[in-house]
Amino acid sequence: MTHPVTPRDPLPSWNSLKAKESLIHFVELVTGKRPGGFVPPEERIAVFDNDGTLCSEKPVLMQFAFTADRIRKLAHIHPEWKTISPFKEFLSGDMHGALSGGMGAISGILAATYAGMTTEEFEHEVSAWVTTACHPVTGRLYTEMVYQPMLELLSYLRENQFRIYIVSATGIDFMRPWTERVYGIVPEQVIGSSIRLKYEVHDTIPVLVRLPELEIFDEGGEKPVAIHHFIGRRPVLAFGNSDGDIQMLRWVVSGSGPRFAGFIHHPDAEHGQADRACNGNMLSGKSDRALAQARTEGWTIVDVREDWKTIFPFATS
Amino acid sequence: MTHPVTPRDPLPSWNSLKAKESLIHFVELVTGKRPGGFVPPEERIAVFDNDGTLCSEKPVLMQFAFTADRIRKLAHIHPEWKTISPFKEFLSGDMHGALSGGMGAISGILAATYAGMTTEEFEHEVSAWVTTACHPVTGRLYTEMVYQPMLELLSYLRENQFRIYIVSATGIDFMRPWTERVYGIVPEQVIGSSIRLKYEVHDTIPVLVRLPELEIFDEGGEKPVAIHHFIGRRPVLAFGNSDGDIQMLRWVVSGSGPRFAGFIHHPDAEHGQADRACNGNMLSGKSDRALAQARTEGWTIVDVREDWKTIFPFATS
Repeated sequence: MTHPVTPRDPLPSWNSLKAKESLIHFVELVTGKRPGGFVPPEERIAVFDNDGTLCSEKPVLMQFAFTADRIRKLAHIHPEWKTISPFKEFLSGDMHGALSGGMGAISGILAATYAGMTTEEFEHEVSAWVTTACHPVTGRLYTEMVYQPMLELLSYLRENQFRIYIVSATGIDFMRPWTERVYGIVPEQVIGSSIRLKYEVHDTIPVLVRLPELEIFDEGGEKPVAIHHFIGRRPVLAFGNSDGDIQMLRWVVSGSGPRFAGFIHHPDAEHGQADRACNGNMLSGKSDRALAQARTEGWTIVDVREDWKTIFPFATS
Repeated sequence: MTHPVTPRDPLPSWNSLKAKESLIHFVELVTGKRPGGFVPPEERIAVFDNDGTLCSEKPVLMQFAFTADRIRKLAHIHPEWKTISPFKEFLSGDMHGALSGGMGAISGILAATYAGMTTEEFEHEVSAWVTTACHPVTGRLYTEMVYQPMLELLSYLRENQFRIYIVSATGIDFMRPWTERVYGIVPEQVIGSSIRLKYEVHDTIPVLVRLPELEIFDEGGEKPVAIHHFIGRRPVLAFGNSDGDIQMLRWVVSGSGPRFAGFIHHPDAEHGQADRACNGNMLSGKSDRALAQARTEGWTIVDVREDWKTIFPFATS
């Protein structure tokens, strides 16, 4: 015996505008509730950038805050860091200066701060950090600075048998210890930048050791490459928010059958109570080219001021 | 209302010896049918080497046969290959000589024969090849040269909520087009060696192009590294058959909780009707060190002559 079901709004934090309508239309098409676009469940793969797409990346990317804390912790055994860039900038809190050297500088930092650690030791470091480290503006845990409307979208897609992957320039081993708890995304569905690892045997125990060498910087054209390596199928839905997501979005929508490209647009002015003070793109990816491309290609633009009723879970009560 | 269920043998092609008993005991432990070793379903990850573990690697690895066919196909536009190693050896059928140069030579071959192809073009090549290419000894399709007892083991594990991954030195993009049909293993659960790819836009269409460069040679210590990158959790069960699997097996069993390491041992003499003529390890991995280690560490050794009633599906009728 079945009972009539009252339709439930799957995206309650989204205003009933074009973006929300497009998302629901796409899901109904793919699942066969609307004709002409059925996609078998095994091919319902969705990929999401992380920083700025699923969580706040302002005023600083979460992994940079983690690395800065690590540098402060190790400073007493590295007195030379007070005079060497980018360590001296990290130590004085000048994050903009610390990162001005680009990826070369970041790789150097990663090498200096975590090289020689085993993957298990690094996982423990990350797990301990995320349970205590707070966002500098809101005072909330970083892992609370996630976008409520996107959590609803992840649930909605999951209910419709999508498999959800993160595809981020942030380190794969930095994300995996907390993405399941925060987003419901299991380790094997997290793709990110990686450090070269080496198998070694320490006192008869096999371990994987972090080397001072970046293996993959999962940004730009490397995102579709990493998706191909890790998943081996082209996703049908992708979301991003910066220029580093352009290639992933283009590659996803150029497949055959129904496709969805979503672009999270954070206008510079303001976008919500708690996020208002977190603005300024200085330490997050640029997005000018991606926004222009989204307009040209007809990707679904999610304007967080207009499309979202609320930004963070803690502001929804 | 429930009916009493007649116990069904989950591994009918296995003789009732120690290996079969150990496997069933392990599965009952992990699933909680026996006390003291329950593992939640999300952590029931099993990894299998491919060539020699799930399918025949004699007299030649499947991907080498594929590459040899490609070289023959392109020879008319590369007359110089008749005098250059390893192409001349491939063209004269001297597979032993062709591969004597080791990985350097193999990389060169891959570069010459598939560089510049898009991932989709390569997938079509592989898909077409596997539907027609036949094993030189049995005349069967290569994809029929899979081990019946291992197909039963994969099913048994799947019924008990294991997620099964292949972890092979064979190319990831060479395996993915057929592993789902042959083993029931979906593309995202196939890990292998990879060629460097580059994102490009060809006439407004984004594509991923194969470069003449090996990215990962997924063998030895690279197997646990690749498992960590792709899965992010340590498996609880692993199967291999050669020296290149030692590190994977050691790394898997050194985790906490119940663990299973299986080693497929192919004695040199003979092991079954169809496989009898396919012997000789010349083009497959060496296994002497691994066998010794399996004995020292107490891994479960599967002697294919003693433990298996049949080798291939086509011989089971």
